[in-house]
Amino acid sequence: MVTQIKPIKTPPNQEELSSRLEKVRRLMKRENLDYYISFDPVNIYYLTNFAFYVHERPFILIIPIEGLPKMLIPLLEKGHFESRARCELEFVVYYEFPAPSNENWYDYYQKLIDNDAKVGIEAAMPIGIANKTPGKKIVSDIIEEVRIIKTDYEIGRIVHACKVVNKGHKVLLKKCRPGILEFTLYKEVTDAMTSKIVQDIPEANFRATETTGAVWPPSVSHDPHLIPHIFAPMEESGPHVSIVSAQVDGYGVEIERTFFLGYVPEKAKKPFEIMYNARALAYDLLKPGVIMSEVDKKVRKYISENGYRDYIIHRTGHGLGITGHEAPFLAEGYDRLLEENMVISVEPGIYIPGLGGFRHSDTVLITNDGYIKLTRAPESLDEVTINL
Amino acid sequence: MVTQIKPIKTPPNQEELSSRLEKVRRLMKRENLDYYISFDPVNIYYLTNFAFYVHERPFILIIPIEGLPKMLIPLLEKGHFESRARCELEFVVYYEFPAPSNENWYDYYQKLIDNDAKVGIEAAMPIGIANKTPGKKIVSDIIEEVRIIKTDYEIGRIVHACKVVNKGHKVLLKKCRPGILEFTLYKEVTDAMTSKIVQDIPEANFRATETTGAVWPPSVSHDPHLIPHIFAPMEESGPHVSIVSAQVDGYGVEIERTFFLGYVPEKAKKPFEIMYNARALAYDLLKPGVIMSEVDKKVRKYISENGYRDYIIHRTGHGLGITGHEAPFLAEGYDRLLEENMVISVEPGIYIPGLGGFRHSDTVLITNDGYIKLTRAPESLDEVTINL
Repeated sequence: MVTQIKPIKTPPNQEELSSRLEKVRRLMKRENLDYYISFDPVNIYYLTNFAFYVHERPFILIIPIEGLPKMLIPLLEKGHFESRARCELEFVVYYEFPAPSNENWYDYYQKLIDNDAKVGIEAAMPIGIANKTPGKKIVSDIIEEVRIIKTDYEIGRIVHACKVVNKGHKVLLKKCRPGILEFTLYKEVTDAMTSKIVQDIPEANFRATETTGAVWPPSVSHDPHLIPHIFAPMEESGPHVSIVSAQVDGYGVEIERTFFLGYVPEKAKKPFEIMYNARALAYDLLKPGVIMSEVDKKVRKYISENGYRDYIIHRTGHGLGITGHEAPFLAEGYDRLLEENMVISVEPGIYIPGLGGFRHSDTVLITNDGYIKLTRAPESLDEVTINL
Repeated sequence: MVTQIKPIKTPPNQEELSSRLEKVRRLMKRENLDYYISFDPVNIYYLTNFAFYVHERPFILIIPIEGLPKMLIPLLEKGHFESRARCELEFVVYYEFPAPSNENWYDYYQKLIDNDAKVGIEAAMPIGIANKTPGKKIVSDIIEEVRIIKTDYEIGRIVHACKVVNKGHKVLLKKCRPGILEFTLYKEVTDAMTSKIVQDIPEANFRATETTGAVWPPSVSHDPHLIPHIFAPMEESGPHVSIVSAQVDGYGVEIERTFFLGYVPEKAKKPFEIMYNARALAYDLLKPGVIMSEVDKKVRKYISENGYRDYIIHRTGHGLGITGHEAPFLAEGYDRLLEENMVISVEPGIYIPGLGGFRHSDTVLITNDGYIKLTRAPESLDEVTINL
C-alpha cells in the first residue's frame, strides 16, 4: 500500500508554508491573540524551512495576526536563513550577543510588540526569553497543534523518509550476525542511509538530517533506553531489538524490530507472541474517531491479562513529523481522537530482565478509514528468525 | 606547552561531582535559595554525568540547600541514568508522559518543594515547566556561572578533546585538495576523530559525543554560518576556511584555519595579514584581570583602522566546556574579567563578499600569567599555503 503515496524529496514551496501560517492564524484568532511568538527552532523550521539549534544568539519568529511575520535574527545567521527559508517575512537584524547596551537582541525585540497586546507563547519558551517578551502573555502550543495533522506535502516527505529507514533496516538485518560489533553495525546502517539521502536529495539540509542505526543485543534489550556499549558484540539467538531512525531533510521516522539470530529460545516464544498480538490489537483499533488513550488501555489490558503487566514500561506510541517524537500520543491520559493524516508509531513492548525486550515499531499514517504502515520489514516470528 | 597538562579520558569521579555541587550551593547560599532546579540537560550532565536531550518526558534535578539532590525521571530513563551518573542522589520516578491524572510528572514534582520556598531556576527553563514549579521563583544561572571556571579535571578532559580535533584538522589539511567534495572531506575527518575517540575512550558516551569537519571553499567562506553544499568541490587557491569541532565524551572544543591550496591571491594577502595581527593582538591581551570586552574592542579597533570595519561580523571569542559555545565571551558588552582556568576560543575574523573569509580559531586556556593554546595547526601565511 505504501507505493500508493508518492514520496516527495523537495523543500516546501511558498504555498505550503503560507497554508501552515494560515492555520496558525486561525488558532490565533480563536484565542484572540494579536501576536504569536515562536522561539522553538522546530516550530520555526515548520513555518520557514530554516533549521538551526538554539544557541546563545536568539532567533525569534514574531507572527502578527495580520501582515508579514518578522524574523529577529543575528547578523551572522541572516545569509544562512535566506538560503533555506521558503516564506515571505521581514528581517529584524541585531549584531551580536553579548552586545553593548541598547544593541542587544531584546532592545530590538521589545520594539516589535505593543505592551498591551495579547501575545501567545510556546510552553517550551525559556523563561529568560518570556521575561523579555512584551504584552500580555498566554502560553498556548498553537504550532504544535497545527503540526499534529500532516499536509499532503508532509505525508510525501514522510513516505520518502520511511524508504530511507526501510533501506537502513534491510542493511541492518543483512549485516547483523553473532560477533559483529555495535559500532560496525552503526557505521554500516547509517552510511547506507546517508548515502541514500544525499543521492535522493543533494540539497538536503544537514541541520535537519540525522541517522541512527543500532541493535540492543539480548543481554541489554530489556532496557530500551540504556544505550548499548559501542563495542558490544551481537550474540546468538535473541531477542535482539533494532532501532533504525532518521530525520531525513526535516522529517523524522522510525522502524524497530525484535529478531533472533539462528534460533528462538523456548522462553522467548510466549512474550514474542503476546507482543505480536498486542500490536495486531492496536492496529485493529486504528481509525479516525478512536480515543487514543483507549488504544493504549486495551493493549495494556491484553498484555497484562497474559502475564506481563510488570514488563510494560512505556506507552503504545507517539507522533512523528518534523521530529521523531512529538504529539499526538497513544497513551493513557491522552484522550484526543485519532484523525486522518496523523502519523504515529505503533510499538507496544514487553521488557523482561534476564530475557530481553520484545518490540516492533513502525511509522504509520492514519487514513480516512484506517491506516497505512509506511515502514516495512519482517514481522512474524518466522520472518524475524534469521538463518545463520 | 600543551604537553604540560595531562589529558584525562575517564569519567568524573564522585569527588569531582561533589565539588561542583558544593560550588553551586555556595552560590545558592549567597542568593538565599532553598532549592535550585535544573532542567537544562547540559547542566544536569555537569552535575551528574548523565547526558540526554530534552524530550516530551521531562527529567529534572532538584537541589535542596542541604541533603541529597533529587532526580525526577521517567521509569524508562532510570537504568540509563544509573549507568552513567557518578553522583549521590535520590530518585523520584514517574511512569510515563502523557499519564492519567495524578500520575503526571508534575504531580510528583510539586510534592518535592514547599510553596513558600525560594527556588532558583535557569533562564533556559521552559515557561511550561516554570509554571509547574512551586515556590517563589528567582531566575539565576548559577550552574552556568560555576561552569565558567574549569576544574583541573575538566582541563584534562579539554586537553584530550583538543588532541582529537588536532588529529581531525591534520587529516583535513592532508586530504583537502582542489576537486575533493565537501562530503568526502567530512567523512574522512569525522571518521578519523571518531576512531580516535572510541580507541581512547571505549566507554565514551555517544549522547555527549559529536564530531564535525568541514571546509568553506573560497566561493562561500565570506559567510561563516552558511553551511556549504554537501557536494561542493574544494577549489584552487583560497581563502578556504576549515571548521573542525568535537564534543568528546562531554567536552566541546574547536580548531579552525584559513588556508590556500597552491597559491595566495594577491588581494587576499592584506586581509590575511590584518586577521593574523588582530589575532596576535588578542593573544597579547590574554591574562587574568583583563576586561573581556576590552579584548574585543581593541581587536575591532585594529581591524577597523586597517580598512575592514564593515567586514567584522562577529565577536572575538566564546567560552567552551561541556558545550562548544557558552559563557564567557570576548565581546563588547561583556565586561567580566578574564580569570585563570577559563577556556575560550580566540577567533577574530574578516569576511569579504567576493573574496572570502579570514579566521583562525583555537581553544585556549587562561593561566595564572597568560594563556596556553590547547589546539595546534599551521598558522602563518607560509604554513597555511599548501603546495599542490
